[in-house]
Amino acid sequence: MNIAVMGYGVVGSGVAEVLKKNHASIVKKSMQESLELTRILDLRDFPGDENEALLTKDFKDILNDETIGIVVETMGGVHPAYEFVLDCLKAGKSVVTSNKELVAAKGNELLRVAEEKNVNFMFEASVGGGIPIIRPIISCLAANEIDEIAGILNGTTNFILTKMINDGMTFEDALKIAQELGYAERDPSADVEGKDACRKICILASLCFGKHVYPDSVYTEGITKIALADVEYAKAWGGVIKLIGRATRYGDGKISIMVSPAFIQNHSQLAGVDDVFNAILVRGDALGDVVFYGRGAGKLPTASAVVADVIDCARHTERRKFFGWEDSVEDYVVDYLDIKHPFFVRAKADKQAVAEHFGEVQYLEYEGAAADEMGFITAALTQREFDAKVAAAGLEVGSVIRVTDY
Amino acid sequence: MNIAVMGYGVVGSGVAEVLKKNHASIVKKSMQESLELTRILDLRDFPGDENEALLTKDFKDILNDETIGIVVETMGGVHPAYEFVLDCLKAGKSVVTSNKELVAAKGNELLRVAEEKNVNFMFEASVGGGIPIIRPIISCLAANEIDEIAGILNGTTNFILTKMINDGMTFEDALKIAQELGYAERDPSADVEGKDACRKICILASLCFGKHVYPDSVYTEGITKIALADVEYAKAWGGVIKLIGRATRYGDGKISIMVSPAFIQNHSQLAGVDDVFNAILVRGDALGDVVFYGRGAGKLPTASAVVADVIDCARHTERRKFFGWEDSVEDYVVDYLDIKHPFFVRAKADKQAVAEHFGEVQYLEYEGAAADEMGFITAALTQREFDAKVAAAGLEVGSVIRVTDY
Repeated sequence: MNIAVMGYGVVGSGVAEVLKKNHASIVKKSMQESLELTRILDLRDFPGDENEALLTKDFKDILNDETIGIVVETMGGVHPAYEFVLDCLKAGKSVVTSNKELVAAKGNELLRVAEEKNVNFMFEASVGGGIPIIRPIISCLAANEIDEIAGILNGTTNFILTKMINDGMTFEDALKIAQELGYAERDPSADVEGKDACRKICILASLCFGKHVYPDSVYTEGITKIALADVEYAKAWGGVIKLIGRATRYGDGKISIMVSPAFIQNHSQLAGVDDVFNAILVRGDALGDVVFYGRGAGKLPTASAVVADVIDCARHTERRKFFGWEDSVEDYVVDYLDIKHPFFVRAKADKQAVAEHFGEVQYLEYEGAAADEMGFITAALTQREFDAKVAAAGLEVGSVIRVTDY
Repeated sequence: MNIAVMGYGVVGSGVAEVLKKNHASIVKKSMQESLELTRILDLRDFPGDENEALLTKDFKDILNDETIGIVVETMGGVHPAYEFVLDCLKAGKSVVTSNKELVAAKGNELLRVAEEKNVNFMFEASVGGGIPIIRPIISCLAANEIDEIAGILNGTTNFILTKMINDGMTFEDALKIAQELGYAERDPSADVEGKDACRKICILASLCFGKHVYPDSVYTEGITKIALADVEYAKAWGGVIKLIGRATRYGDGKISIMVSPAFIQNHSQLAGVDDVFNAILVRGDALGDVVFYGRGAGKLPTASAVVADVIDCARHTERRKFFGWEDSVEDYVVDYLDIKHPFFVRAKADKQAVAEHFGEVQYLEYEGAAADEMGFITAALTQREFDAKVAAAGLEVGSVIRVTDY
């Protein structure tokens, strides 16, 4: 069986590298007689590249090649990745992708087409880079009803927050270092505004709870407003600030889903996840909490997840995997204004106004705090209730950060 | 398709509970029309139990029942579990077990019989309780060559060590609490002497490196000799003491494997694993380090892993899974005397003798240390070299604990 790769960038070239490096054991594990990379689609030229002979600029060279049974999509973006993947599936080829944007936008449709055509559409690498998470959710946790899923899903923002927490660096300085190290793009907005984490929690929520969740239905807040004062207050509370994507299933079948910075207790397994690492917590009814930890990005870790999917497709050529989800339905995602949790507030306020409107709160203190500011944690409130109290108390708010129980 | 359970103890009754509680979604995921528990084997009586009508004391009621396609073995121990499992496999039934003693002693043979009979033999619950680890190693990490695997594999000892580290309790006091809470047996030797962890690292090493590893070929040291002074020295070093099972593949195809207490750095993902939790670190060549964390024991977590395997067996009735390993070969496991790592030493000694025989070492200090003792960390040495130096330096050794780089 032959393989094609569409998109010869960081991940695509990593896939070629892993396929070559561990070739013998990969073929053995695939239970195929052979498993060869024979075509690579990219509009760019790669003169002198070891795979130069495989390169093509014409998608039809892949689509019409009947020896190619598995197509790896590592182009990124929704278009034309969507059209290419759709054509491949319709032509009876299995597709493996690392493209979270594509899966978050079109996953339900592509899974349905794959099912109709009795081929596989797999996307382990789209969440958590090399961390095995999609398949464990499906197969290993099959016996559990999953109640909640939460994670540190974006390595760039976690790197920046780690620098702020451990080295007292400002957001701007930490971002600059992340850019210098190649962890952040020149335009870092997809990462620092939480969009990347949002796509990933959408994929996880779709998988765990059975209905497609579109990124634009998810309240998403990035880390750009986090100040060092917030980091210090979190320390005083006994925790750290992390950018968390999380989704919870309610008893009535609806879900809440959100991406935002959050206070995480120090003893949580998510608190010690530093630098570009990712971690995903799955809460099952029988199992309790399970956490998966590892490199959430990077050429070889991501490529290793892609290749694991390729091996799985090669082993299961004629049957679809039992995974997928239904289309979205109206009112499935709870309005974020109705999600309830405690809030951390950093504000210019007086304690009397706070007491009057918020009742009992937990005041936090640290040495060096601004004299005219205070930090406190409220009882569990909906965003709607919280906003009303802030307005009524006349708080001049510096920061608002949600508090988790992980 | 029908299911039988052999052994109606904690895990077996948990399996019955999970099968009942999540029945509808389990049947759906199994892709069978029905999936019913119809027989339970146990020599004891359970008058009034909700499953009393399913109980039998005669194994033949399961073996000869052709409607039973999947048998769950949760009896524990090698005999007669081995004979029963063997008969079931030979009769063309798939078997799911949580019995690490059985898998560590007879895994290669049972996997071979399952392959011959084109049925499945699965054992996700035998390591790490409910943590998905066996299947992720096989399928998700298929693209990696695994170089090393290490873990906190025994909840009882981890609970005891956590009490010693966080509460300054002695080993004896912590063990007593563990027994009161039901975490430790009245005879705790299988746990505190490391035998349980040994069986689990044998299973993981067999799976990762492809050849069966028998527990009696593994150097195994428990936690009974750890003193509070060692805990304090570990803190001074910047870490904690954990009971670690680990296995490493060498370039020449041999492996090292060992169970022992170890110094773990505080920033390691294994350091924060407290109480009865387990965590397993897998180091792949493409992936780097991945850590799986969760409840390593307990009725429902373990049952949930068993039921996940049951679902997998139901979905794949006619094909064996591609996993297994070969029989052991001679000289495959490196003599523990030749394994190299730094050692922590607590001893009555003088610095001159230490310097003379060990060269440069890292001295550790903590307030309250015994005046006539010292604690230090050596360079990386084989056990053989280390023993010779200890003898030559005339050290009166209190403790020796291996130091890891996790």
